[in-house]
Amino acid sequence: MNPVRNPEELADKVLGAIKAVAGLDSAMLHEPTFQGNEWKYLKECLDSTFVSSVGKFVDQFEVELASYTGAKYAVAMVNGSAALHMALLLAGVVRDDEVLIPALTFVATANAVTYCGAIPHFVDSEKQTFGIDIDKLSAYLQANTLQEGGNCINRVTRRVIRAIAPMHVFGHPSNLEGLLKISKDYNIALVEDAAESLGSQYCGRHTGTFGIVGALSFNGNKTITTGGGGALLTNSLELARLAKHLSTTAKIPHQWEYSHDCVAFNYRMPNLNAALGCAQLEILPKLIEAKRKLALEYRNSFSGIEGVSFKLEPENCRSNYWLQTIILDSKHANTRDRILEKTNQSGFMTRPVWNLLHKFKQFANSPKMDLSGAIDLEKTLINIPSSAHLGMGN
Amino acid sequence: MNPVRNPEELADKVLGAIKAVAGLDSAMLHEPTFQGNEWKYLKECLDSTFVSSVGKFVDQFEVELASYTGAKYAVAMVNGSAALHMALLLAGVVRDDEVLIPALTFVATANAVTYCGAIPHFVDSEKQTFGIDIDKLSAYLQANTLQEGGNCINRVTRRVIRAIAPMHVFGHPSNLEGLLKISKDYNIALVEDAAESLGSQYCGRHTGTFGIVGALSFNGNKTITTGGGGALLTNSLELARLAKHLSTTAKIPHQWEYSHDCVAFNYRMPNLNAALGCAQLEILPKLIEAKRKLALEYRNSFSGIEGVSFKLEPENCRSNYWLQTIILDSKHANTRDRILEKTNQSGFMTRPVWNLLHKFKQFANSPKMDLSGAIDLEKTLINIPSSAHLGMGN
Repeated sequence: MNPVRNPEELADKVLGAIKAVAGLDSAMLHEPTFQGNEWKYLKECLDSTFVSSVGKFVDQFEVELASYTGAKYAVAMVNGSAALHMALLLAGVVRDDEVLIPALTFVATANAVTYCGAIPHFVDSEKQTFGIDIDKLSAYLQANTLQEGGNCINRVTRRVIRAIAPMHVFGHPSNLEGLLKISKDYNIALVEDAAESLGSQYCGRHTGTFGIVGALSFNGNKTITTGGGGALLTNSLELARLAKHLSTTAKIPHQWEYSHDCVAFNYRMPNLNAALGCAQLEILPKLIEAKRKLALEYRNSFSGIEGVSFKLEPENCRSNYWLQTIILDSKHANTRDRILEKTNQSGFMTRPVWNLLHKFKQFANSPKMDLSGAIDLEKTLINIPSSAHLGMGN
Repeated sequence: MNPVRNPEELADKVLGAIKAVAGLDSAMLHEPTFQGNEWKYLKECLDSTFVSSVGKFVDQFEVELASYTGAKYAVAMVNGSAALHMALLLAGVVRDDEVLIPALTFVATANAVTYCGAIPHFVDSEKQTFGIDIDKLSAYLQANTLQEGGNCINRVTRRVIRAIAPMHVFGHPSNLEGLLKISKDYNIALVEDAAESLGSQYCGRHTGTFGIVGALSFNGNKTITTGGGGALLTNSLELARLAKHLSTTAKIPHQWEYSHDCVAFNYRMPNLNAALGCAQLEILPKLIEAKRKLALEYRNSFSGIEGVSFKLEPENCRSNYWLQTIILDSKHANTRDRILEKTNQSGFMTRPVWNLLHKFKQFANSPKMDLSGAIDLEKTLINIPSSAHLGMGN
């Protein structure tokens, strides 16, 4: 491996390695792939006139999603944010609770906490999984919480820490064994933000099925899309029923009467969007294979470049490689922005990880632990073009 | 007119009058009509791969919706509940405020108030419009509120009454002149729940354009549908921009960086749903004409039946007749349930108005005025089959 002499040279090499895999012209960060029955099912949905919150596709989508993930139940939602909000409600999060979430996640995780009237409590991440740093969190909770009446109490704020919502970043599973242990040891409900990890497994089991409830997203940039959409995964019949009830205005079933037994939401995925989802689920295994093949191609393409490494799936995990990622060596962190500029200017869309959430002014008063792991990752991660069709030999 | 001798006879006559207009076999309460470019635009959207929160149809839908309604700006939302929530936020509703809403409305109006952390304050309705009883409300506010620092304060609860959210019930415009006067006299922001009134005008101006902001719905049962969807109408550029910002996670525009400057929402209508909406908007004038023709047919059909009257549009209004409605004379109120049973059992879907919201346990602690007008209406209103195609001579 030849040493890199200056930032421009590294940026050139990164661009070259991307182009070698993603083609010579340009590439988006992530485009959907429609190669199956998308047209057919949309037309069938339209012809039925059942395009809204009731229809066969939304029921079918739930059944097939449960089957694919191995969750006992899936409940379709209007988008990933709605699914996350609902997941936290089902976990019992109420006003003035705290919810442990990584500082290194998309803002939707934190927003969903605030929709419950609760407060995000930011925890650190580590570089093996890009997920929550379990050892560091264990030590932090040991020192900073106490147990009272079966609840985990923050010693400083005196608030209940009700839930922990890890995010499987870019599709790489977090350390779920460690998270389950923390959940059990500290009486903190585990809610998985699996928005990015449809198709990703931890020890052979699908992400989103380890916690009380998991939340998926089918936004346009995800592995499969329903236009906008999301879903809850759970193994509890009671929670699945409650999720459906709360996502359909808590209407009590009756032929003509309109009664509602609690404050609730209009969070049901429309049948039109589910029609697209049913077709996308059919090609999901093919999309995952293409994304995994793309990862291998990137690994090879970046293997000869000093100072940058391609992110492979964590041990014992099978990742969907939703967003393909390279990591700069710390000494090259100051080259990150030049690489972003050069690649985007050349038509190959790249981006850094999200700005860490604890820095946003709306979360300035949120509690947080030492976040040095996340801060290091923020400086050195770059996502590169990741569409499934790039791994399909197109 | 022959006097009705017993409940069974009245139920028979109502069923007969419905069948005379809606056909001999069966009729849903409200089905969508797809007769235009629905499939063409859906296919075009799919072929573009832009099915999610960015795309030409969602922008086009906003422009055409503004043009049709005469609002300066329209901002597409994921559904009517999201639009209502956003509308209240834009009107400045914050935690522990009160919002005046009719007890006689769909539960979404009240739920949206609670999403802001605010409290619904139930007000009475009258039979000319099915909307808020202005005279009664004026007297109530005079007696029960005071002005402090430009805010309207509830004398009993000491909370700020921040907004009033009238609902244009079944598409019939409320008394907007009276509502504007109350808004001005008492410093209470006017937010129109126009979920049911797309195409309805008050004094020649479209509902939803009188208040600071109005909220529309395009749910599957509405005059036009996007599967699920809603929109805000406003004449304020500042509020329109804020609505779009807050409905797209408050992301600050940047080529690759992810920063968000406040707690916000994933409330944007997907492009896929907007594609359907663009096609539906094209046939909206035709749908409204059909629904108005259907109203005339029902008026004639019910004109000979003693004890029941067909609801016509309020004075100076042009109604979309979203849900066609009959009103029983008070002395026949006890026949309502028999009529509902008989018609539904015969395949002609009918329903009463929503159960009044102040009776639900989740709103048991909400303030309310005397609601005798709404209570009378609840006992005597029945919606009858209202699909546009019934007025198209099919």
